Amino acid sequence: MANRVITLVTDFGLRDPYVAEMKGVILNICPSVNIVDISHEIEKFNVRTGSYVLASSSPFFPKGTINVAVVDPGVGTERRGLCVETERFFFVGPDNGLLALAVRGERVKHIYVIENMEFLLSPVSSTFHGRDMFAPVAAHLAEGTDASDFGPRTRNMIIPTFANVIKDGSKISGEVIDVDDFGNVITNITEKDLESFGDTEELSVEVGRKEMRLRFCEAYGNVEVGRPLALVGSHGFLEISVNQGNASKVFGLKNEDKITVCL
Amino acid sequence: MANRVITLVTDFGLRDPYVAEMKGVILNICPSVNIVDISHEIEKFNVRTGSYVLASSSPFFPKGTINVAVVDPGVGTERRGLCVETERFFFVGPDNGLLALAVRGERVKHIYVIENMEFLLSPVSSTFHGRDMFAPVAAHLAEGTDASDFGPRTRNMIIPTFANVIKDGSKISGEVIDVDDFGNVITNITEKDLESFGDTEELSVEVGRKEMRLRFCEAYGNVEVGRPLALVGSHGFLEISVNQGNASKVFGLKNEDKITVCL
Amino acid sequence: MANRVITLVTDFGLRDPYVAEMKGVILNICPSVNIVDISHEIEKFNVRTGSYVLASSSPFFPKGTINVAVVDPGVGTERRGLCVETERFFFVGPDNGLLALAVRGERVKHIYVIENMEFLLSPVSSTFHGRDMFAPVAAHLAEGTDASDFGPRTRNMIIPTFANVIKDGSKISGEVIDVDDFGNVITNITEKDLESFGDTEELSVEVGRKEMRLRFCEAYGNVEVGRPLALVGSHGFLEISVNQGNASKVFGLKNEDKITVCL
Repeated sequence: MANRVITLVTDFGLRDPYVAEMKGVILNICPSVNIVDISHEIEKFNVRTGSYVLASSSPFFPKGTINVAVVDPGVGTERRGLCVETERFFFVGPDNGLLALAVRGERVKHIYVIENMEFLLSPVSSTFHGRDMFAPVAAHLAEGTDASDFGPRTRNMIIPTFANVIKDGSKISGEVIDVDDFGNVITNITEKDLESFGDTEELSVEVGRKEMRLRFCEAYGNVEVGRPLALVGSHGFLEISVNQGNASKVFGLKNEDKITVCL
Repeated sequence: MANRVITLVTDFGLRDPYVAEMKGVILNICPSVNIVDISHEIEKFNVRTGSYVLASSSPFFPKGTINVAVVDPGVGTERRGLCVETERFFFVGPDNGLLALAVRGERVKHIYVIENMEFLLSPVSSTFHGRDMFAPVAAHLAEGTDASDFGPRTRNMIIPTFANVIKDGSKISGEVIDVDDFGNVITNITEKDLESFGDTEELSVEVGRKEMRLRFCEAYGNVEVGRPLALVGSHGFLEISVNQGNASKVFGLKNEDKITVCL
Repeated sequence: MANRVITLVTDFGLRDPYVAEMKGVILNICPSVNIVDISHEIEKFNVRTGSYVLASSSPFFPKGTINVAVVDPGVGTERRGLCVETERFFFVGPDNGLLALAVRGERVKHIYVIENMEFLLSPVSSTFHGRDMFAPVAAHLAEGTDASDFGPRTRNMIIPTFANVIKDGSKISGEVIDVDDFGNVITNITEKDLESFGDTEELSVEVGRKEMRLRFCEAYGNVEVGRPLALVGSHGFLEISVNQGNASKVFGLKNEDKITVCL
């Protein structure tokens, strides 16, 4: 039988020993698991970016994959730890919105609050739940523990405002949810949100008081090098790009900017 | 039986979800494969550096390893996708020179153009062939699919100019092919190119109008800290270094600079 | 049986092919091993930081784990290569203090000097013992080779001065051993060193001529955002932090600074 996969998204960076400590804890509990890094370079404490990166990559993993996400400015406070069981995956992490975008794309079966100390490292530090709570919970899931063993069910989890898209006639308003390493400006507006537009070759994009008219393409290379375009990226979100250039710098667009598109 | 290895070289960086998406796709098709990152920090769109990094590391992997490389400024245009079968390895990626240096070091058996949609993600996006074409092809190879199933054979692939070394009597002319993270200046001149020099303790290196006389050593530590030297690096290429220093900064040498060495 | 784990700590960075070359060598010798990166982003030639990162993460790995560390400014000179066998782990790397902090926390059984060329790559380069010596030794350990086969036993290894903590009545003097990616200032003073203080809610910290009075907390979140605190980090070392801020910048503290704490 193929090994179970545990994925990791954190803001720990790759220089420090923290990610390795999580992996050590996981391998101690479940030596045969296949640990895959999604990203550890999420901007420190940026739950929004972490949520986007998790949501855009987790759907590609095999059924049964256990996704652990730790961007956790409230570690050691009252915020809850969650284990969300969906039809295809598990999501483990703090209840601060980090899991919300990924979970929204799945059929949720149950949400559990992690409370059963039996499955956690002892003692649980107040500074590093990634290692002491979320890593061992993920490893026990991989070993076959039932999610209901970790604690009581809950019906709600925090849904962050950056998940909202508003449709108003021929206008769709959303916001920038990430600027990737290429400078592509990624919005929270999905391919599905744009369906009502049908086939169009151009889009108007309003940012603040500025308005741009952009070619709506299928590939970066459909415009000349250095030219701007809009497209639905490989992850299903509308993005504003410059072919082989940095759209974020060219247009002065950054994370959290409000954005409106119309035909 | 030991698991097959798939290696990855890209310019995607480690912050974004793109590398993880490729890994998810691979594990969905071939759950038992061992995925090893070579580098994802190739400078954006720098095919030359990607080609060097792939060529210098791929020879060390086990026979049968499948090497996937994606530095792909022309994604979504007419450029072809290739699967190169050599006696020891497979190389999968765009036909833009990226695979050329690594393939040159191996005995090529066949070159295939990837065309058979049956093995690709559906639909293939126009922006991310790393995930939609090269990752699934590699995973199917690992599962045992014959490379000839991916598409028609071809006899040629693009050979970039940065592969050229010219020997003229006692002079060898090449160019800087990479500056590594330590600041070592790595040329495309190989140990084999230097064989005609026999045992020598010094080399003259001409860059532009400047000429330097450098000790030709076996170890960085053979000169004092802060002193320059030339040596054949661990990967078989001539490099110019400063012991515990940054040769690129000290000598103002950068990628693509022409360089001539003589006795 | 679960696969053996080999961990890696280096200062090679993630851009260059060097880490991948080590992994290729390892997988050629022992294809079933599970290679886990601890960190490759140790500051170049900074043995102190490498030693800390190894010591803080290695205890979390499963019994039998083989830890390879390469921060090696003296590569190619007379410095010895070591294989240290402890009750739980193996540590493989240069004899320059890099292994010392991790080994101090374990029960040492034997220290061997790596001399037997039979287990090394041939020829051993003078510039890259990580690949040619330490990687193959680790892989052969994973394959079941006895550590005593690598070379003669020795009774000593280099113990660096950054391991020293001095207790003088109610004062404990140590030094900054790392500044992590969050800006947390980590000292070499351990939880055990602080036991004599009993339960205290405040600590005085002297750095140079400055003295600070800090709340001694259990979690970053126990003080308001932007406020400083002292705590014993998740790895057992005293650290000075700012909740969601950068203590290194706020207090001007850096690696190697001397530090004294008192009640």
